[in-house]
Amino acid sequence: MATLLKLFPTCTWTGRLAHLSRKGWAQSRSGRLLPCFPASQRCASTTSYLTVEMDDNTGVAVVTMKSPPVNSLSLDFLTEFSISIEKLEMDRKCRGVILTSGLPKVFSAGLDIMEMYGKGPEHCAEFWRAVQEMWLKLYGSNMITIAAVNGSSPAGGCLMAMACDYRIMADNPKYSIGLNETLLGIVAPFWFKDTMMNTIGFRATELALQLGLLHNAPNALRVGLVDELVPEKEVLSAASTAISKWLAIPDHARQITKSMMRKPTIDRLLSHRDQDINNFVSFITKDSIQKSLQVYMERLKQRKT
Amino acid sequence: MATLLKLFPTCTWTGRLAHLSRKGWAQSRSGRLLPCFPASQRCASTTSYLTVEMDDNTGVAVVTMKSPPVNSLSLDFLTEFSISIEKLEMDRKCRGVILTSGLPKVFSAGLDIMEMYGKGPEHCAEFWRAVQEMWLKLYGSNMITIAAVNGSSPAGGCLMAMACDYRIMADNPKYSIGLNETLLGIVAPFWFKDTMMNTIGFRATELALQLGLLHNAPNALRVGLVDELVPEKEVLSAASTAISKWLAIPDHARQITKSMMRKPTIDRLLSHRDQDINNFVSFITKDSIQKSLQVYMERLKQRKT
Amino acid sequence: MATLLKLFPTCTWTGRLAHLSRKGWAQSRSGRLLPCFPASQRCASTTSYLTVEMDDNTGVAVVTMKSPPVNSLSLDFLTEFSISIEKLEMDRKCRGVILTSGLPKVFSAGLDIMEMYGKGPEHCAEFWRAVQEMWLKLYGSNMITIAAVNGSSPAGGCLMAMACDYRIMADNPKYSIGLNETLLGIVAPFWFKDTMMNTIGFRATELALQLGLLHNAPNALRVGLVDELVPEKEVLSAASTAISKWLAIPDHARQITKSMMRKPTIDRLLSHRDQDINNFVSFITKDSIQKSLQVYMERLKQRKT
Repeated sequence: MATLLKLFPTCTWTGRLAHLSRKGWAQSRSGRLLPCFPASQRCASTTSYLTVEMDDNTGVAVVTMKSPPVNSLSLDFLTEFSISIEKLEMDRKCRGVILTSGLPKVFSAGLDIMEMYGKGPEHCAEFWRAVQEMWLKLYGSNMITIAAVNGSSPAGGCLMAMACDYRIMADNPKYSIGLNETLLGIVAPFWFKDTMMNTIGFRATELALQLGLLHNAPNALRVGLVDELVPEKEVLSAASTAISKWLAIPDHARQITKSMMRKPTIDRLLSHRDQDINNFVSFITKDSIQKSLQVYMERLKQRKT
Repeated sequence: MATLLKLFPTCTWTGRLAHLSRKGWAQSRSGRLLPCFPASQRCASTTSYLTVEMDDNTGVAVVTMKSPPVNSLSLDFLTEFSISIEKLEMDRKCRGVILTSGLPKVFSAGLDIMEMYGKGPEHCAEFWRAVQEMWLKLYGSNMITIAAVNGSSPAGGCLMAMACDYRIMADNPKYSIGLNETLLGIVAPFWFKDTMMNTIGFRATELALQLGLLHNAPNALRVGLVDELVPEKEVLSAASTAISKWLAIPDHARQITKSMMRKPTIDRLLSHRDQDINNFVSFITKDSIQKSLQVYMERLKQRKT
Repeated sequence: MATLLKLFPTCTWTGRLAHLSRKGWAQSRSGRLLPCFPASQRCASTTSYLTVEMDDNTGVAVVTMKSPPVNSLSLDFLTEFSISIEKLEMDRKCRGVILTSGLPKVFSAGLDIMEMYGKGPEHCAEFWRAVQEMWLKLYGSNMITIAAVNGSSPAGGCLMAMACDYRIMADNPKYSIGLNETLLGIVAPFWFKDTMMNTIGFRATELALQLGLLHNAPNALRVGLVDELVPEKEVLSAASTAISKWLAIPDHARQITKSMMRKPTIDRLLSHRDQDINNFVSFITKDSIQKSLQVYMERLKQRKT
């Protein structure tokens, strides 16, 4: 936990209300919200937590997470994120997504603890369904997905990065990435585990999950948690370079191949989705776990004063 | 595709008629064709596409593929190959096989596109069954199988090499190996994918299959697609050295162990064999896919003129 | 086999009678034998084959195997081992176990051949159930388990080490570790294979099992069979250092995570346990296999005279 405190000493962990501006979005005939791009090559839309910049020339959208202070994955954030990804998925011009952070030093700090602390079971269930939905959208996306990891990425942030097709990380040993849930006394669910096993294999996952390992950038490369390290200022341009290789592959063949690899893992969650929600709710609402979360937040507050 | 063109600039990709000479083969009591070796220590048999040299002293047969210009896996080639492997399998004196190419610069260029282009569904189905049969025979062989990869080995050629127990490749960075199907707009079927996952793991397979990666020899070693690199002229002798270690293991224990490792993967194809054929036929006979193959062959022709 | 002979030239491979001293153990209310520790911080119990030293301050027990000459896993040894682990498991003060050898040059030589040679099917079945039980207890332990591998560890010794959470080995190239069953003409059962696959992956397991590879310490580290090499005299202290990292993790979260990783592998044996015993008994009592074991033991004897 000391590590997390060091990473995010000013973290407030408070939930944010969703001021959904809806700027840049329009309603489609089917009733879905769709991006409403001006007739130019580059068009941007901004919501409360995300900026989506689409380049019609390349077919690549850059999705920038901007939810200060640390891009915590709150219910509102997750909802907005899943809607944005779904919109891009339905946009025929969009072939790939680069996911990055607009905040300094952090990609995403992971799940917002405020959504799990002192909340009733209904809220926890709704929140958990939104976490599942984010992963299902990203891990199962037909688009090329590149994570431009320009800061630390613990827990749910690591899950997001792992759900992409390729990960480029800033070569800064102060930044770390990993599923560190056990450090907080909680447990990464089976589909977090499955995603990590698909990325770094059984043994490295067993070690990482039990010890709640946060790998610094060089170690993350060594263990295979990220695919490439580049200087901090070049993360986005390296992501553009990388995605051009993926764009050279016929979409149809690439999509079928991607689905062949990932479908069994996705199906496993889909067929146990409600059970997974029940497990989460009954676990997180336990007195002992709530106490752990409280202790953790007290420490964060002490650290700040 | 540029890579393939570079590798095989003179490739004609035309199918060959099978002039099955049957030289060196005899019919067994059960009606099967069996090798008819003279009473010497080394005996060779030659068919249209293969030379089989058996050394009775060591129990090792060297199977050399010679189907100019690039050892394309045509229906006739595959049929002959499967028959040869089955004969060796039934030959009690034969304990191991070294599989290599008798052509310069290429191990095998993979499936013969002419068997999939402009052909009716019956032909495509027969062809695909022959591809399955080759893999079933090789991946499930009780014999020790060493691939002496003395040239490039894309697509089906890579599958052949991966189906062996051990892979030695010429240390020539101009030679490459990999499942590059997506580059042609087609998709490696699930058992190609399974075989690659068993060789290099989930993540490396996900990357390699989606991007259609052809690894040059040094990269192939690094990623684990081959087990050893040796100077080009020493590939065969290195294979002999390697197989001697395998011959030191009691056959019975080695065979049970091999089966324990590979049976689940083999059973998966066996229980979906017809479905896999149907999938292939309906995919490959699509107008869009036929168009892709046509474009690809046009480029090959332009390249040659 | 030459390797094994070199490792243990004075090995007698004879079974030992169990002189169960019961020193340091008492009977619990439920009738089970429980450790009876004096009211001090460090308390030790010694049985015929094991010394168990518990440090109440750290919650770590050091289990030292002392069954000369080579810690062969006889029926009595295995029974005692499983009872000891179960006792520690039930001891609330015990959070972790360091497993090591009290003999020079060897961690454990693996299954005692005398339990399989010239014995009736009932004895073989009882023996095999004890081998299963040892693995089930260790691989499924809720405690942190660290193997301090201070000597060679072939076959069943390797299984024991792999069943722990973390492996530290003496940096001595003369010490080796691996599942070398095929060298003796026998076959590692599926759950040995599963455990190795979970440790070093499919491909490395396929190679290691077929060839009966015994990796020396540096190779064992390279392939991932052990996690750390340290100078021979520091193996135990390094194990203490390593376990302190694991002790920093909340037990509850770590245990659920460990179970999530290992339960499928454990369940596979549990649901085929009797079948696995039958397979072993019918295999090991075959004349050909008994002959192999005899030949092996004759060589050991010749070596000694």
